[in-house]
Amino acid sequence: MSVAIQEKVSTKDFIISQSAELFNLYGYNGCSMSHIMEATGLKKGGIYNHFSSKDEIALAAYNYSYGLVIKRFRSSLDVVETAEEKLFAIIETYASLIEQPTMKGGCPIFNTAVDAIDFHPSLAAKAKEGINRLQRYVEIKIEQGIENEEFKKNCEPDRIASMMIIHLEGAIIMSRVSENRQHMRNAVSFLKDYVKTSMVI
Amino acid sequence: MSVAIQEKVSTKDFIISQSAELFNLYGYNGCSMSHIMEATGLKKGGIYNHFSSKDEIALAAYNYSYGLVIKRFRSSLDVVETAEEKLFAIIETYASLIEQPTMKGGCPIFNTAVDAIDFHPSLAAKAKEGINRLQRYVEIKIEQGIENEEFKKNCEPDRIASMMIIHLEGAIIMSRVSENRQHMRNAVSFLKDYVKTSMVI
Repeated sequence: MSVAIQEKVSTKDFIISQSAELFNLYGYNGCSMSHIMEATGLKKGGIYNHFSSKDEIALAAYNYSYGLVIKRFRSSLDVVETAEEKLFAIIETYASLIEQPTMKGGCPIFNTAVDAIDFHPSLAAKAKEGINRLQRYVEIKIEQGIENEEFKKNCEPDRIASMMIIHLEGAIIMSRVSENRQHMRNAVSFLKDYVKTSMVI
Repeated sequence: MSVAIQEKVSTKDFIISQSAELFNLYGYNGCSMSHIMEATGLKKGGIYNHFSSKDEIALAAYNYSYGLVIKRFRSSLDVVETAEEKLFAIIETYASLIEQPTMKGGCPIFNTAVDAIDFHPSLAAKAKEGINRLQRYVEIKIEQGIENEEFKKNCEPDRIASMMIIHLEGAIIMSRVSENRQHMRNAVSFLKDYVKTSMVI
C-alpha cells in the first residue's frame, strides 16, 4: 500500500516537473497534452489519472516553478544580515536568473504573468500574488532598514520597492530580447548606486 | 484588373490586422489557423492564397503591430522640440500603452519578444531590432541634448537609454501583472525626476 502511494506521488511529481518546463517554453496555450505525453512517456489516461485537466497541471507546474525561484531567493537572503545586504542580495538574485535560469524559457513567474493575463484568471491570480509578495518583502526590508537607522527616514518603502522590481523585471526582459546581458549589469549597478546614494545614511 | 488587385490587397490586409490581435492575445504557438479562419471568416485555402505559411502571417502581423506602436510614438514626438520634451514624450507614450493599448493583449513588440525568444528566430530578430532601434533613438535624443547644452556633459547616452527602456518595459509588465497602474505612474514620475535632477543643466 505505502509503495503504491509512493509510486503515485513520484509519477505526479514527474509530470509536474516535466510540464513546468514545457509551460515555461511554449506558454499555456502553446503547451499541449501531446507535449506533456511526449516528455513524460505517459499516455493521456496515465496523466489524467493524476490531474483532472490541463489547467490543474498548469497550476501545479506554476507552484513548482515558483518554488524553485523562491528557493533561489531564500538561499542568498538567509546568509546576509543588514537591510542593505538584503536589498543587494535581491538585486543579485534577479541578475542570477539571467546568468543561471531556474529552468529553460526564462523566469517562470514573469512568463506566466504575461501568458495568463488575458485568458487564465487562476494562473494570472497566482502570478499577481507572487509579484505582490515579492514587493511586500522588499518593502519590509526597507522598513526594517529605516527602523535600524541604516536607511534615511524619508525613504518611501512602497515607491522604492515598486521602482526596484519594475527595474529588475524590465532588465530581465531587455537582456533576453536584445540578447545582451549588459542591460542586466547596468540595472544592477544603477540600483546599487541608488541604494548607496539615496537610501543609506 | 485594378479592382481585382485592390480586392486582393485589402483581403490580405484584413487577414493581417485580424491575425495581429490574435497573435498578440494567444501568442505564436497558441494562435492557430482555426483562430485566424474564424476571425476572418475565410477558409484555409483563402488564407494560403495570400500567405505561404503561418510564419509568414506572423511576420506580417508583427510588422503591422510594430507600425501601430511607432505611429503612436511619432505622433507625440513630432509636436515637441527640446531634448527634454522628447524624453518626456517617450515616457508618456509608454505610459499611454497601459491606459490606451494599441490592441488587445498588451504591447505587441514586448509580447512577441517574450513569446518568440526560444522558438521563432525570425520573429525574435524582429523584436530585438525593434527594441534596439528604440534604444538608439533615445540615445540620439540624449546626445542631441548634450550637444545643445540642455543636458550635462557627463550623461552617458547608452547607459541612460538602457536604464529608461528597462524601467518603462518593467513598468508595463508590473502594471499589467499586478493590475495596478500605480506602478506605471511611479515609473513616469521616477524617470521625469531623473531627467530633471540628474540630466538637465
